[in-house]
Amino acid sequence: MPRTISSERFRELFDRFNEIGATERGGVNRPSLSPENERARDALVEWFEDAGLSVTVDEMGNLFGRRGGRDDDLPPVLIGSHVDSQYNGGRYDGVIGVLGALEVVQMLNDAGIETERPIEVVSWSNEEGVRFQPDMLGSGVFAGKFDREFAYSREDKEGNTFGEELERIGYHGKELCEPRDLHSYIELHVEQGPKLEDSDLSVGIVEGVYGFVWFDAAFEGSADHAGPTPMHLRHDALVATGDVIDAVRRIAGTGGEDLVGTVGSLDVSPNSINVIPERVDFTVDFRSYNDSVVNQAADRICEEIDHAATREGIEAEYEEIMRIESQSFDEGVIEAVADAANALDADATRLVSGAGHDASYLNRVCPTGMIFVPSVDGVSHTEDEFTEWGDVVTGVNVLLNATIEKANEGIEWG
Amino acid sequence: MPRTISSERFRELFDRFNEIGATERGGVNRPSLSPENERARDALVEWFEDAGLSVTVDEMGNLFGRRGGRDDDLPPVLIGSHVDSQYNGGRYDGVIGVLGALEVVQMLNDAGIETERPIEVVSWSNEEGVRFQPDMLGSGVFAGKFDREFAYSREDKEGNTFGEELERIGYHGKELCEPRDLHSYIELHVEQGPKLEDSDLSVGIVEGVYGFVWFDAAFEGSADHAGPTPMHLRHDALVATGDVIDAVRRIAGTGGEDLVGTVGSLDVSPNSINVIPERVDFTVDFRSYNDSVVNQAADRICEEIDHAATREGIEAEYEEIMRIESQSFDEGVIEAVADAANALDADATRLVSGAGHDASYLNRVCPTGMIFVPSVDGVSHTEDEFTEWGDVVTGVNVLLNATIEKANEGIEWG
Repeated sequence: MPRTISSERFRELFDRFNEIGATERGGVNRPSLSPENERARDALVEWFEDAGLSVTVDEMGNLFGRRGGRDDDLPPVLIGSHVDSQYNGGRYDGVIGVLGALEVVQMLNDAGIETERPIEVVSWSNEEGVRFQPDMLGSGVFAGKFDREFAYSREDKEGNTFGEELERIGYHGKELCEPRDLHSYIELHVEQGPKLEDSDLSVGIVEGVYGFVWFDAAFEGSADHAGPTPMHLRHDALVATGDVIDAVRRIAGTGGEDLVGTVGSLDVSPNSINVIPERVDFTVDFRSYNDSVVNQAADRICEEIDHAATREGIEAEYEEIMRIESQSFDEGVIEAVADAANALDADATRLVSGAGHDASYLNRVCPTGMIFVPSVDGVSHTEDEFTEWGDVVTGVNVLLNATIEKANEGIEWG
Repeated sequence: MPRTISSERFRELFDRFNEIGATERGGVNRPSLSPENERARDALVEWFEDAGLSVTVDEMGNLFGRRGGRDDDLPPVLIGSHVDSQYNGGRYDGVIGVLGALEVVQMLNDAGIETERPIEVVSWSNEEGVRFQPDMLGSGVFAGKFDREFAYSREDKEGNTFGEELERIGYHGKELCEPRDLHSYIELHVEQGPKLEDSDLSVGIVEGVYGFVWFDAAFEGSADHAGPTPMHLRHDALVATGDVIDAVRRIAGTGGEDLVGTVGSLDVSPNSINVIPERVDFTVDFRSYNDSVVNQAADRICEEIDHAATREGIEAEYEEIMRIESQSFDEGVIEAVADAANALDADATRLVSGAGHDASYLNRVCPTGMIFVPSVDGVSHTEDEFTEWGDVVTGVNVLLNATIEKANEGIEWG
């Protein structure tokens, strides 16, 4: 029989936590290292200790709460996510992974269940890249992707560094932030996409994460008067950009089954109704679970940018600013999640995450997997973000049973 | 024999004037009703009076300097332009029309030439629409296009009104600003386009001004995450806008020989590299000398906006915010300009202005015409704006001779 948590108790925990930084429109505003993020951390530390967890904070402000195992020398099973939010973000993103992990521990405590391996609950620093870029900074340093000093030097728009702000809120811990021996990592998160809802399912068994490439690009033409300049004498940076927007859509439609492509950011200069655009700065994002598909899309869009510049008689520049290879999660963790969903009779499917998560970096350190619950309308990063409570509870129950399985895995009980 | 001005004297006048609000990069910064615009007006008043002109300021701050005629009761010939500039604009735009008109008077004074009709030099308020919108506000009120109270209520970005600022700099005159009996109006201006330079010509005999239509438009889609949202579930406001950018270029290329079309301004929200654009606000500008061509282009782009919205499954909104019909200048003034260019042996051609000018509104009040001199590289509204001095002088000489012709027109000399 699978174990289950108390939906009511977890709901109370969830609502109490989301009073911190609550917005009028039903979201939360707890950006990384803000006063609200500090209060959220304070609450976690208090509740971790109430649940009997021994708390440590590492030098990136990542927060760990440890529940001992029968054999406390065995590498622990790590479960969690993040509690920093977007500016005026949603109440579910990250939160259900951390509080769900805490609820797992409370359920085990109440039922008097011991596990062979220790279980650690984690809340990673700066998962959202809204105040300090890049995102997933806490797990990135932990996994050795970023240097600690690089992370400390990241600045917000006011010029405050991550390092100063971490010190200011009192969460610059002593523990080294570096890879250590972990048995496995399991993260529960909202899907942030529409696939589960579209198929009327409650649980996603996440097999991996898309790889992606990001470009910063620009066209530079001539800012002539929109009236007296005949069409054949124009060098319009926005017309060239229009070609690229179209090309991104075309490449995404033909470059591979799961390929997605987006021009998300675009700035025009001088941006005046009667002046031909001189310069356009824009971004391109391509993602697929197949890295060679991403590579081909990247090559094609560079050619398209060059062609568009030639056609319009203008200059083009572009730079690849980020490329992350796809991550395939550990078959053992995927199986544990699938077994738990199956035992709970949950409506589940295997899928791949289009968005990056802390689990993407943890996958470099230890066997890793993820559990998704649906995002209504696929919406996230806004106050409208919503997941049906029944789905949240199902997600935590899958986490609970997968965690028990991994924490006792391969051990013959006496 | 045609009359000619002194190139050296005019150069000195031009350079002294452009010390006011001079920028380091060789332009001028004298936006409407700024302290620099006030000083420029003060200089004009002083120099007008030095040239024997009787100065009046109307209630819109339009500045007139009158040189009497043999028959002072006859309607005057009005010549001039504007001296307000873009922010960090060029030294030629508007300036050569006002100072050129003053030089015309000085030449006539020095040579002891009387004209039958009075000649008035004018400097119109707020021709550039950069601080207070719309542009051509002074000549627009004069011609009855705008209400005076509407003009006074125009606000700059700091919330200062045109009326308050006009009062503050002491140029709220007593003269009524309304249509009055004028024999004709002639305006010398830089072309602000590349046609004259492209044909290696010095003078444009302007036959009229393009009509135009302006739209404010927007698409509203869904701001989903650029990773987990499959292409077939996207509602991307920027992709739809890309279709419209392409359509504007296509319509301009096929809608009529002289039709030009521009998307000059575009703002994306939330404008983030990994978020599908939810909303795009943009503008469309179409111009032609043929009003029915403009009308057809306007109809076609509205259809294209609707189609783009339907294709992407999003909402579209658009509003026509301005429509000005084309202006055909007076055949008599055009002939006087052509005769003057011919007598001076200037390399001239007839053309139509793609940009609006004070002359567009004066054309509603009295027989009107314009003289263009080349803009090097077609550039205007920037500090790089440049016209060869020889071309400027030729332009003023055309103005001089056309003005003499119109001021004595139809009068048998005794």
